[in-house]
Amino acid sequence: MKKIGLYLIALITCNLMMAQEIGQQRGPQFSSPEVAADNKVTFKVHSPNAQSVTINGSWMGFGQSVPLNKGADNVWTVTIDSLRPSMYHYNFFIDGVSAIDPKNALALRDGVRYASMLIVPGEGSKLFEVNDVAHGSLSLVWYNSPTLKLNRRMYVYTPPGYDNSKDKYPVLYLLHGGGGDEDAWTSLGRANYILDNLIAQGKAKPMIVVMTNGNLFQTSSLRTAPNSPEINRENFMKYAGMFESSLVKDVIPYIEKNYRVKAGKESRAIAGLSMGGMQTINASNAYPDVFGYIGVFSSGIFQPAPDDEAKFMALKKAGVTKYWVACGKDDFVMQSNKRLLELLNKTGIKHEYFENAGGHTWANWRTYLSMFAPMLF
Amino acid sequence: MKKIGLYLIALITCNLMMAQEIGQQRGPQFSSPEVAADNKVTFKVHSPNAQSVTINGSWMGFGQSVPLNKGADNVWTVTIDSLRPSMYHYNFFIDGVSAIDPKNALALRDGVRYASMLIVPGEGSKLFEVNDVAHGSLSLVWYNSPTLKLNRRMYVYTPPGYDNSKDKYPVLYLLHGGGGDEDAWTSLGRANYILDNLIAQGKAKPMIVVMTNGNLFQTSSLRTAPNSPEINRENFMKYAGMFESSLVKDVIPYIEKNYRVKAGKESRAIAGLSMGGMQTINASNAYPDVFGYIGVFSSGIFQPAPDDEAKFMALKKAGVTKYWVACGKDDFVMQSNKRLLELLNKTGIKHEYFENAGGHTWANWRTYLSMFAPMLF
Repeated sequence: MKKIGLYLIALITCNLMMAQEIGQQRGPQFSSPEVAADNKVTFKVHSPNAQSVTINGSWMGFGQSVPLNKGADNVWTVTIDSLRPSMYHYNFFIDGVSAIDPKNALALRDGVRYASMLIVPGEGSKLFEVNDVAHGSLSLVWYNSPTLKLNRRMYVYTPPGYDNSKDKYPVLYLLHGGGGDEDAWTSLGRANYILDNLIAQGKAKPMIVVMTNGNLFQTSSLRTAPNSPEINRENFMKYAGMFESSLVKDVIPYIEKNYRVKAGKESRAIAGLSMGGMQTINASNAYPDVFGYIGVFSSGIFQPAPDDEAKFMALKKAGVTKYWVACGKDDFVMQSNKRLLELLNKTGIKHEYFENAGGHTWANWRTYLSMFAPMLF
Repeated sequence: MKKIGLYLIALITCNLMMAQEIGQQRGPQFSSPEVAADNKVTFKVHSPNAQSVTINGSWMGFGQSVPLNKGADNVWTVTIDSLRPSMYHYNFFIDGVSAIDPKNALALRDGVRYASMLIVPGEGSKLFEVNDVAHGSLSLVWYNSPTLKLNRRMYVYTPPGYDNSKDKYPVLYLLHGGGGDEDAWTSLGRANYILDNLIAQGKAKPMIVVMTNGNLFQTSSLRTAPNSPEINRENFMKYAGMFESSLVKDVIPYIEKNYRVKAGKESRAIAGLSMGGMQTINASNAYPDVFGYIGVFSSGIFQPAPDDEAKFMALKKAGVTKYWVACGKDDFVMQSNKRLLELLNKTGIKHEYFENAGGHTWANWRTYLSMFAPMLF
């Protein structure tokens, strides 16, 4: 027993000592967040000296927050009303300073900011969770973009079974929004787990999903290439269409060379959210023979141009198998979204439109991907 | 110009609106951290109401912190002495609550905690940075472990050129420490970028690096399989050697089946830090014919056992090309490290020992990997 005890102590010591490299708080023991059986959620943070502690969560309206109350043990606490099962994120504000929950090991990045993650488990969260199903692989690969004169990074999801088969697979090109980068669709969007789960349920066909970085001049998340030009009002048009061009001329050939891919329009889909939705519209209009399936999430035609109708007519002529548009009722892009729908109607492009509650949120984009992927191929 | 302007505004609006999903602070504009030409670093955080703000950084001794001072604009500031070029991490404490720097987009996870990342650029940071060199791919793959009865995740780094060659590559199995998981060697350890840089400089041979999860019962980072047994004093020995066994019986066959790998001891290396160093000792002793190269970082024989000498004798008999041991002078595992060195000396296993300043830190483990990888294959 002595041996076992010491061995255990050694292990535990390693544990403590390693973790301690990142400064930790001392104080009472508690967990945060805690989800009760009725889906009420309690958040806690320890601070003897803070003057105010509040929480902002993705289940609240924009800019809203709720105060935590200080207990006798200097632990600030709040219990919020039942949340429906889903994935959420939140931050504390300690005397006005944004902080992730020190007791929550799960955090995620949205652009330049971090938030703690909360999963309220249940039917509504299942699709985003890591379930006991076969998982695809997620690869971070670097490719050369002659169009952008950059060596840059993207994520490639290959579905379960890819490695042990000789089959060729269709491909979904999935674009993030402004402020995001190539990490976004897996960290916030859970795209790989959504696909794992849909494929396991037989709801989506096994497919490859390619998630690029839609910001010109970024080589990889948060890294801009040295000596990159600054995009401003004067030089902006010089760069219009370059991302879309790099997608079709650089990314697709790389994928079709390095992966077992079904080439051809009928096996290629494109979808994107917000800025990525605009890029989806632009890419499918500029290259009408490339994508058979088009998904526009929370976006639209931000600024009508005289040749819009001609472009959509060309797309119609080339043929589209599926044009799917989705937007939240409260989304600030609703006007642009309506412009897109008007143009699709006017040019007679067959399309489907889905409108749900909520605004410009990852909760909606995860839902839209869950609905769009099963329509493909 | 109107069109361009509106298009730009739309883009910028997208940016703002997306990022806003994560609650942000308002207040004066500033950057943090800022590295001056003399490598002094200034940290800033805005809080009108905090009573105290301190910072703890990986360049400080354990448990130390430095106060920030409140300026007239409610921005708390501190400038610290010049740091030598390298990679660091730090946290603020806002009235005692640990927080990452709200102005710093780079954060990393160490076990259950997060910290902001700081790179002081220069010769000493080059090896950890994303440089303009060819990059290998990093894949998150799931594999079946019959030994652990789990479907679990690991990282596989394939070097630049792998995809476009038919060559077979040697493999380094790289193990994390207690409190860590399969993310650790890439997020904190920068293993993929270290290898990219060493390979680009011709200092290391192109190799595959496999980074597993060394915690029994975890399927992937921070996720324990449902209904897993709790390891305690009573049942601990039941699980001894299981990780090492799963590495040799499950992981290696998976890698050798799914990647173009040079099989055989001369093309297999194992290295690990802390708990992973112990696992490295255990695995190479238990399977003396499997690994030709062995690296033990900040570890050793935590508890001498009667059969230690016999095990090392068996390893000596089987033959080892390289046995490399490294430890910091101030590391709390120094006693265990010395026990390992004594056993290597006693059994006459040829080995090399590197001792440097510092303790049980990622700064040291990144250094050790940078030194060990060039010795391989």
